[in-house]
Amino acid sequence: MPGIVECVPNVSEGRRLDVIDGLARVITATLGVRLLDRTSDPDHNRSVFTFAGEPDAVERAALALIDATYKAVDMRGHKGEHPRLGAVDVVPFVPLAGVTMAECVALAHRVGAAVAATHHVPVFYYANAATRPDRVRLPDIRKPEYEGLAAFLETTHVPDEGPRTLHPSAGAIVIGARPPLIAFNIELDTTDLKLAQRIAKEIRESSGGLPAIQAKGFMLTDPPRAQVSMNLLDHTVTSLPRVWQEVESRANAAGVRVLRGELIGLLPLDAALAAAGAALKLDGLVRDRVIEARFLE
Amino acid sequence: MPGIVECVPNVSEGRRLDVIDGLARVITATLGVRLLDRTSDPDHNRSVFTFAGEPDAVERAALALIDATYKAVDMRGHKGEHPRLGAVDVVPFVPLAGVTMAECVALAHRVGAAVAATHHVPVFYYANAATRPDRVRLPDIRKPEYEGLAAFLETTHVPDEGPRTLHPSAGAIVIGARPPLIAFNIELDTTDLKLAQRIAKEIRESSGGLPAIQAKGFMLTDPPRAQVSMNLLDHTVTSLPRVWQEVESRANAAGVRVLRGELIGLLPLDAALAAAGAALKLDGLVRDRVIEARFLE
Repeated sequence: MPGIVECVPNVSEGRRLDVIDGLARVITATLGVRLLDRTSDPDHNRSVFTFAGEPDAVERAALALIDATYKAVDMRGHKGEHPRLGAVDVVPFVPLAGVTMAECVALAHRVGAAVAATHHVPVFYYANAATRPDRVRLPDIRKPEYEGLAAFLETTHVPDEGPRTLHPSAGAIVIGARPPLIAFNIELDTTDLKLAQRIAKEIRESSGGLPAIQAKGFMLTDPPRAQVSMNLLDHTVTSLPRVWQEVESRANAAGVRVLRGELIGLLPLDAALAAAGAALKLDGLVRDRVIEARFLE
Repeated sequence: MPGIVECVPNVSEGRRLDVIDGLARVITATLGVRLLDRTSDPDHNRSVFTFAGEPDAVERAALALIDATYKAVDMRGHKGEHPRLGAVDVVPFVPLAGVTMAECVALAHRVGAAVAATHHVPVFYYANAATRPDRVRLPDIRKPEYEGLAAFLETTHVPDEGPRTLHPSAGAIVIGARPPLIAFNIELDTTDLKLAQRIAKEIRESSGGLPAIQAKGFMLTDPPRAQVSMNLLDHTVTSLPRVWQEVESRANAAGVRVLRGELIGLLPLDAALAAAGAALKLDGLVRDRVIEARFLE
């Protein structure tokens, strides 16, 4: 069987609903892929699409989405809370079933070569598709952001594919292959951005916090609220309940309540079951202990 | 498509592993059904099997299991914590997919008629298959237990099928159709059975507690521990996190810690996601927000 790949492109448009709807239609119009989720945030000014299908179909949908986004989004007018390098900021491919990570790396490299050739946009490969150790972590690649990248394209940020000049409207793009991750945010009942930033710094791996955790503090505007935004790169190493507890205890210690969690994209079933098992002190709440008609058909 | 029915027979044998293994093999040997779970408890002296398949196959497996159990279990020597009326105590059929509740009721009645005719055992129909309002609730039917039932078979407990005399070794049997339920126990860090019994009484619907909750206090022996044993008849009415919190707060108020949850049989996926969602304050953590390769194939 040809297997199933998930693709989770992050696009730098989270406000113009007609544009975002159009991009979603580009995905749903591609034969053989299913759009599983879309999440847009106006403060981040960013949308995350989750779709899946056989590798060939996913490749076609990713290229069509990139093409449509480059036509619709101009980075010269883009403002948003979330760091980004380009109109299509990051495109990860995730092996879900019957596909190896190596095949997803090859897929990422094919898409990157096509984007460079077609659109003349600088391409960086990250995560399992990275070509150098300092390109594994997305935050390292993204640090200069769109506004600062041009200055580094001849030095630290020589692209893996494409020109050493920033594309004026499209910026640059990061493409890669990675295991499933969980994008999970926690909203705090405060407008104290510094608190969210401090908590993020304390819990993220790169500052000596929890393994396999990336975190950043953001400010949301409607309603105004500080947010700890996280990626759980491996929930079997640091789980959702652990992250929740670490954020909540720090917020509470500062006299601030935790308001709600927010999931960007989809949650792997195993992680959901682990969170339920922890809440109910049920050891070994794994797939085989769950009944669902779709598992039996 | 012919649909999928789940069957969850409860058998009055939880100690002799060779006998229980033999009963499990009777299920797995039936073409067209899958044994999904088996849970045995020596204190309750009871085993719960969970299997599923198309209605015809499930009917054959249920009858074969009843036949094998009647050969292996003699109620005259049975002792256990859990109330029961017979060697096969209760056999519920649950519509999972592509099957109506009415079809499961008809299936229950067919199996009941066959058991009465073949084994000369009194049969009671319960839940959605009940023939009278006072037979809907299993605890009402089971109250006299095996030891006391003979005295009521001509009066309050005239069987729905079969003789009005107790079968000496098999006792009686309760057969029915019902929606999925969750059998969930909470172990307390105490040997105070009265505490577990008081908590059970306070939270169960029949004593004015939580809707759709049945509960009973038990004593486990190895290690010695009091247990609150529950059925959640509709987790969308009273959820697992709610039950957990109600039991924990009462135990804590008595200075007792809650040790662990225990699941008997399987957990419906929706209930697992609701528990995870509550723990992470994630509104609307439903199936569509979860990714699992089996959902996509």
